[in-house]
Amino acid sequence: MTVSSPVQPPDAEALPLVELAQATRQAAQTLASATTADKNRAIEAIAAALEQQEAAILAANQADCDAAQRDQLAKPLYERLKLDGVKLRGAIAGVRDVAKLPDPGGTVQIHRELDTGLILKRVTCPLGVLGVIFESRPDAVMQISSLAIKSGNGLILKGGKEAVQSCTALVAAIKVGLATAGFAPAAVQLLTTRAETQALLALDEYIDLIIPRGSNAFVRFVQNNTRIPVLGHADGICHLYIDQAADLAKACAIAVDAKAAYPSACNAIETLLIHNAIAPTALPELAAALQAAGVALRGDALSRQILPALPPASEDDWATEYSALILAIKVVNSLEAAISHINTYGSRHTDAIVTEDPEAAAQFMDRVDAAGVYHNCSTRFADGFRYGFGAEVGISTQKMPPRGPVGLEGLVTYKYQVVGDGHVSATYSGKDAKPFSHQDLDLSS
Amino acid sequence: MTVSSPVQPPDAEALPLVELAQATRQAAQTLASATTADKNRAIEAIAAALEQQEAAILAANQADCDAAQRDQLAKPLYERLKLDGVKLRGAIAGVRDVAKLPDPGGTVQIHRELDTGLILKRVTCPLGVLGVIFESRPDAVMQISSLAIKSGNGLILKGGKEAVQSCTALVAAIKVGLATAGFAPAAVQLLTTRAETQALLALDEYIDLIIPRGSNAFVRFVQNNTRIPVLGHADGICHLYIDQAADLAKACAIAVDAKAAYPSACNAIETLLIHNAIAPTALPELAAALQAAGVALRGDALSRQILPALPPASEDDWATEYSALILAIKVVNSLEAAISHINTYGSRHTDAIVTEDPEAAAQFMDRVDAAGVYHNCSTRFADGFRYGFGAEVGISTQKMPPRGPVGLEGLVTYKYQVVGDGHVSATYSGKDAKPFSHQDLDLSS
Repeated sequence: MTVSSPVQPPDAEALPLVELAQATRQAAQTLASATTADKNRAIEAIAAALEQQEAAILAANQADCDAAQRDQLAKPLYERLKLDGVKLRGAIAGVRDVAKLPDPGGTVQIHRELDTGLILKRVTCPLGVLGVIFESRPDAVMQISSLAIKSGNGLILKGGKEAVQSCTALVAAIKVGLATAGFAPAAVQLLTTRAETQALLALDEYIDLIIPRGSNAFVRFVQNNTRIPVLGHADGICHLYIDQAADLAKACAIAVDAKAAYPSACNAIETLLIHNAIAPTALPELAAALQAAGVALRGDALSRQILPALPPASEDDWATEYSALILAIKVVNSLEAAISHINTYGSRHTDAIVTEDPEAAAQFMDRVDAAGVYHNCSTRFADGFRYGFGAEVGISTQKMPPRGPVGLEGLVTYKYQVVGDGHVSATYSGKDAKPFSHQDLDLSS
Repeated sequence: MTVSSPVQPPDAEALPLVELAQATRQAAQTLASATTADKNRAIEAIAAALEQQEAAILAANQADCDAAQRDQLAKPLYERLKLDGVKLRGAIAGVRDVAKLPDPGGTVQIHRELDTGLILKRVTCPLGVLGVIFESRPDAVMQISSLAIKSGNGLILKGGKEAVQSCTALVAAIKVGLATAGFAPAAVQLLTTRAETQALLALDEYIDLIIPRGSNAFVRFVQNNTRIPVLGHADGICHLYIDQAADLAKACAIAVDAKAAYPSACNAIETLLIHNAIAPTALPELAAALQAAGVALRGDALSRQILPALPPASEDDWATEYSALILAIKVVNSLEAAISHINTYGSRHTDAIVTEDPEAAAQFMDRVDAAGVYHNCSTRFADGFRYGFGAEVGISTQKMPPRGPVGLEGLVTYKYQVVGDGHVSATYSGKDAKPFSHQDLDLSS
């Protein structure tokens, strides 16, 4: 390991953004055609380069942290900005883990004979170039770069200004790794100014998917300012509904976990709905468990009849993601009313029911419109790692796929390949049209 | 069959658009939970109602056609507007065909044990409400309504003003069919004014997917004026590349089919690229075959050295979808140059290579960025029916799935269902974290 000053990327002289994006697009074409083994070699070379440049990276991060303290950066942001040897080595281990994941490209999804000698295949392939915009967290650079390379995509990163030296040092090491493995360093690029963010969002000719990582307000800003598809979600307003047939012990354990285990996570609940048939007995016990976990409760009129000490919840509460140890409570008079409340105020992220009644559970899971519909378990399971995807690119609350937690498969698309031997459409139309055979073939052949 | 005057829909008094969309959304929830058998019964009832109201529908269409003649509607639009008994009965047969297609909903895509008793499923489900905007073609009403119902979605239709009476009569019959089968008639709605189109595009809270059917300019207008996802494509600029290792007989047959079989189709070619090594011998033969099929050719400087009679093709030609018997020709000096031209000027729809060189074909199919990449066959096969999808909702040239010809599967999304027995996330985190088992289970159980 050599100790050196913060590294500048080889192409640090600012290229005009369009040229930079064109260079990334070109480098991405080589990555797209690369074998899984070659992409894994690049990921290993990147991990090795990051290890080799640990001292330079930590020095760059220290410079960012010093500046952040001078600028009195808010403490949670500072925590996310701060790297140390342990955190860096953990992130490098995460890079190597991506090499072990299955390659999401090259999967044959359809293999069909249309007619003798005319064969259709649908095969997964990279999207092209990803634009990833994140705020203070420099370790995102390593994770997203390895995911982009594994999926065969180019990557243009835009980090927060408070992390500029850290990100520059990290991307420099990543470019060294790419070059070592024989790939163009332009496959991964770093932008550092706020003006470039706006320009990036306008590059719909060169960028195929934008992944914003940051606050809800930031994600909403990105969604409202680009024609490029955006993977992510602005709000995580998740609900837990305690049905009249709920097991109260399960309800208490799930409510505490879903609210208090990690309140700033998007899969934490913001509203607890409870059926009026069990509210008088269940609500005091639920409230005690939640308050013991440090949760501040707010209630609608009916819950305050049962627990008069609760401060009132207003209409605004139903549409608020607190991201804090606050929970709004509402008493509903039916499963129907619970589903209707969730479909009105929810953000289509993840909603759960606690009940021993299988029919109520089936109704809830069928009719709640959300990426995740849960029965007798915590909403906190809504996560790519927990679903077994190996890595999570983001959680999407849009309706069209990819929806919910998105793993590497969210970074690929597909193309249709048709191979013939001079086949023309005229054969299959008109009076003497030959019928298509449409025989599905073995996907692995 | 009763002969009557054009029918008014039951809810013909204009509802404010938001209320109308809410009613459709509610009706869609019932459709979303309906069994395949019940949805097929609704489709059969619609087919029967359309048959029963044939006379009223044809009378309404005649009124539209009379008005169109008074207004001197362009002939191709008039042809698309005109219904007769044969065309109507063909469309009704098409409605019944949709009942025979597999239900795209309820498919289990992932079935996984996360831990003992904690089970994840990913299951396909309807999108919600579709907004379909089309120009003069009234038969689109029948096709898209049956596809929407089969996929469990509500539908808001907006037809062109020249087809207003035809569409009103058709939707009236469809609503009768829905009611006969016990579904809310509000599941399918018709808008008829231009002002409503703008309002429809703003309803991103109520509509999950917009499908525009019409001219390129119209589709582009829709794409530029809504935040709702749009399924479709503005341009179909498809290419045929004749490689130096091409079989000339195949090249001629494919070129003629791809250009002349149906020149206004989006999967017809607009540009022929040819390798300079074979251009001197092949181009005269290709040109003769194309001209014999009535195609007007334009050439770049190199092709005009071989065929001096060709009018020149300009830079604009490479980016133009003629939708007519016109073809631009360009001589390229390598496979590389052909791929680069296609990736620069193409619309990512469908592009083909003619070659006997498997390595050139593999390079082309890997590196051309299009929904369809073809080898030794006509681009005209880019079509949902020809791919064996049973029905085609549209052809998408966006990069994210659904891409290319989209069948019923483009009208569904998926949700993640997780079922536990009181499972909480705290069990799987921290110092004594229990590992997840992540065992894939049988998809059909």
